[in-house]
Amino acid sequence: MAENPVRFGIIGCGEIARKVAGAIDLAPNSILYAIASRSIEKAKNFAATNGLPENVKIYGSYDQVLDDPCVDAVYMPLPTSLHVQWAVLAACKKKHLLLEKPTALDVAELDQILEACESNGVQFMDGSMWLHHPRTAKMKDLLSNYSGHLNFIHSQSTSSATPEFLESNIRVKPDLDALGVLGDSAWYCIGAILWAKDYQLPTTVTALPDVTRNLAGVILSCTASLHWDQPDTTVATIHSSFLSHSSMDLAICASKGSLHVKDFIIPYQEHSASFDFTLGSKFLDLHIGWSVKPEEVCVTSQLPQEALMVQELARLVEGIRKSKFRPDSKWPGISRKTQLVMDAVKKSIDLGCKTVNL
Amino acid sequence: MAENPVRFGIIGCGEIARKVAGAIDLAPNSILYAIASRSIEKAKNFAATNGLPENVKIYGSYDQVLDDPCVDAVYMPLPTSLHVQWAVLAACKKKHLLLEKPTALDVAELDQILEACESNGVQFMDGSMWLHHPRTAKMKDLLSNYSGHLNFIHSQSTSSATPEFLESNIRVKPDLDALGVLGDSAWYCIGAILWAKDYQLPTTVTALPDVTRNLAGVILSCTASLHWDQPDTTVATIHSSFLSHSSMDLAICASKGSLHVKDFIIPYQEHSASFDFTLGSKFLDLHIGWSVKPEEVCVTSQLPQEALMVQELARLVEGIRKSKFRPDSKWPGISRKTQLVMDAVKKSIDLGCKTVNL
Repeated sequence: MAENPVRFGIIGCGEIARKVAGAIDLAPNSILYAIASRSIEKAKNFAATNGLPENVKIYGSYDQVLDDPCVDAVYMPLPTSLHVQWAVLAACKKKHLLLEKPTALDVAELDQILEACESNGVQFMDGSMWLHHPRTAKMKDLLSNYSGHLNFIHSQSTSSATPEFLESNIRVKPDLDALGVLGDSAWYCIGAILWAKDYQLPTTVTALPDVTRNLAGVILSCTASLHWDQPDTTVATIHSSFLSHSSMDLAICASKGSLHVKDFIIPYQEHSASFDFTLGSKFLDLHIGWSVKPEEVCVTSQLPQEALMVQELARLVEGIRKSKFRPDSKWPGISRKTQLVMDAVKKSIDLGCKTVNL
Repeated sequence: MAENPVRFGIIGCGEIARKVAGAIDLAPNSILYAIASRSIEKAKNFAATNGLPENVKIYGSYDQVLDDPCVDAVYMPLPTSLHVQWAVLAACKKKHLLLEKPTALDVAELDQILEACESNGVQFMDGSMWLHHPRTAKMKDLLSNYSGHLNFIHSQSTSSATPEFLESNIRVKPDLDALGVLGDSAWYCIGAILWAKDYQLPTTVTALPDVTRNLAGVILSCTASLHWDQPDTTVATIHSSFLSHSSMDLAICASKGSLHVKDFIIPYQEHSASFDFTLGSKFLDLHIGWSVKPEEVCVTSQLPQEALMVQELARLVEGIRKSKFRPDSKWPGISRKTQLVMDAVKKSIDLGCKTVNL
């Protein structure tokens, strides 16, 4: 454990907070200092159910966490509609911010949050855990150094929601997570494609005619294509759904190689993750086989990806605190581009699948 | 070997004819009886290079094969622009027909061929070998019986053409194979999606803005989406290219399961092929893993898929010859629907990615 670990407060005691509370405990440079729910009972219940240490402060309002001078950073898994209010307030109270995705309802809201972080000198990061898995870095290494030009990328994230989820989960409520599956699963798909493209924004985004909404108008399933013009031409497709079997596919076809991963957001298991990589494969004479079969590349990780995410944020916070570094602009930059593309997909859907220029 | 094997003639001595000549030899109910090229020298050279038996007849014109009364069936790997002329003639000469894909330049041409086959009582089949691999039947079994409703299908077929191919191969010549990659790789992608959908035609087809053509206007790379309306809603995407690393992906996401195969057109190796199938997988508590990982399903095959294709055609020819069966309408039906969708993709590309109704 670090000498002065970064002290985290958690605002909102939902399911995902259980996972990140554990991650804060696992990361060597952070501790869970406080939790807050809208009611003290819910917060106490969360602490008891998850066996939090006795010394974790338990608050019955979000403000109390933000007003506690001992809290360095806040993890905020609130419904998206509440992000701008609480994230801006947290930044103004000089709390570094780990904000669950989607970061905001649109980029205008996100810009308010990012400006508040910037002007208060606090670090911003969204909760895209998979970006912190060492497998992700290994994939990028192989793509950047061996694969050549990326021609086609497909990413999908689907899950089979229960009837209860579809009835009452915040992710399908227009006043809470109005973006529905677009803000949930599609965030990852868009993020993966931007990651593959080194965060170059697409030229155009076009939704495909496959949008399912619930009665309240919240998107439950959608598909879209992203296009990068010459000279760095790429086409990409995303598919996300609450109405399908679990899938988390990322498939990249480049000029010299291809990459396939089927669990890119949540690895099948915690401490080892793999992907298939194929380089320079040709069809054999008479096309009776391939010269090279995919290689399964395995990457182990002592810490789960959510703990690596917390560790990375805490590392940046330590740099700001001890060495007066500026907040790292990489993470807010990634979030903003993801949000921009998500906004474009939403706009294309709302326009009946018209192409949207970025 | 069967008592009266079906006697094949091959019209056109290109690369692919080498493979099918071998397949005719391997299939237990067929023999290679004659080959023809436009010049007797080329045909002789083909026979010598490939070690064909001495008794194989060698002709210097296509007509001679069609006029030989001993030839039961013709394999025709000619450039697409020549199909309608020679396939119609072959049918009129009562030759059963194994026609290389794409079957024709458009469905109007194909209909001329199919009508000739129908009125002459001869069997028609196109050269989509993968449909005859036992893996394909195993995948269909699992999809039909366990996976539930198909929500999303992605299929791609890409290859990295050599400069020589891009310069001089018939597949990029407007007067020979004017459909380019659309008739070559995309034929398989479209076929795979129709196969998955039990040959229900899509409601609409829309090309995506990712079309690369050569100077002569032949398509070298393209992407499209297919959409099936309610109640049997599905969205599918295809991507095909001569300008990318080798890939032959088919990924299907259904309500209860998912399927992934990376070599669906040409298996990595001849006698064993596999795919990944995942059924009923949920994310574990706290989303730290999956309840079920993909199962690798392996299917062995004594004969390569091209020999199984020849065997199937010969089986149908035997039934017609011995038992006076009618030609099986399944195979021409599959070809015609594939051609129809291919035509729609081409139309959408030509209209600047406008949606085309089927």
